[in-house]
Amino acid sequence: MRAARPGDGPALVRTTRALAEHHGSLDGFAVTAVDFERDLFCDSPIIGALIAEDNGDVAGSVVWHRSYSTNRGHEIMYLEDIVVLPEHRRKGVARALMQATARLAIARGYSKIFWMVVDWNEGGKKLYQSLGADIDPEHRLCTIDGDALKALAA
Amino acid sequence: MRAARPGDGPALVRTTRALAEHHGSLDGFAVTAVDFERDLFCDSPIIGALIAEDNGDVAGSVVWHRSYSTNRGHEIMYLEDIVVLPEHRRKGVARALMQATARLAIARGYSKIFWMVVDWNEGGKKLYQSLGADIDPEHRLCTIDGDALKALAA
Repeated sequence: MRAARPGDGPALVRTTRALAEHHGSLDGFAVTAVDFERDLFCDSPIIGALIAEDNGDVAGSVVWHRSYSTNRGHEIMYLEDIVVLPEHRRKGVARALMQATARLAIARGYSKIFWMVVDWNEGGKKLYQSLGADIDPEHRLCTIDGDALKALAA
Repeated sequence: MRAARPGDGPALVRTTRALAEHHGSLDGFAVTAVDFERDLFCDSPIIGALIAEDNGDVAGSVVWHRSYSTNRGHEIMYLEDIVVLPEHRRKGVARALMQATARLAIARGYSKIFWMVVDWNEGGKKLYQSLGADIDPEHRLCTIDGDALKALAA
């Protein structure tokens, strides 16, 4: 387990692409290695990434970003993606990634991590609950983009 | 409608406190005017705020933060809070705040805004849908904090 470093862009495209494939959202998948390298290693980055390795191969990743709690008045962490590549499953990689994420959050002084899971991901929900996470039944995810966003701004 | 400026900290505490009260989460409410002033007006802030006024009074606010899409490979916007104070409701303030937020998102080059709504907030859901937002039935909000976060990091 290690923080992403320059040169990890292609590995992060591989892992996030595997996730997009799993979610059936490859159509909108446009991120490139250059994007990751630019946004991870700029001044004052808002994102960060962790890479899990298995015998020297990239086995999975986490991409997180800085978030903010208006209740608490300080930064917290949003976990954007956690991915374990299919050939590295059932070896505790997801748990190790979550633990490394929690350590990083605490090292950065964050009191909370939040993220989304799709309701049909029973394995994911079970893992998160086993790690002490709360899965809230009440909140719904809203998005606006594309033409709808342009129309609202017009 | 205007961007928050130095001195708006107390107004933002008032609006976000009203929201915490509405959500029954005043127990964890700890943000201060100093927090908002520090985090809004630092170098490279990750949060921003809009203030809605009604005859010179603060009527509501939006606090948003920079977020990131690993599908798109660029920053997007997370809408942390939208609040209309009770005495200023039913005047189109929420709609105006959402429109101003969309304009700001587009001005910043963001292709997407996302946020949460509680499922019992029928008025909010109706408004968001009328503005073109999609409300996803599948995603669930996960959080880990407090002792559970510390235990995971141990």
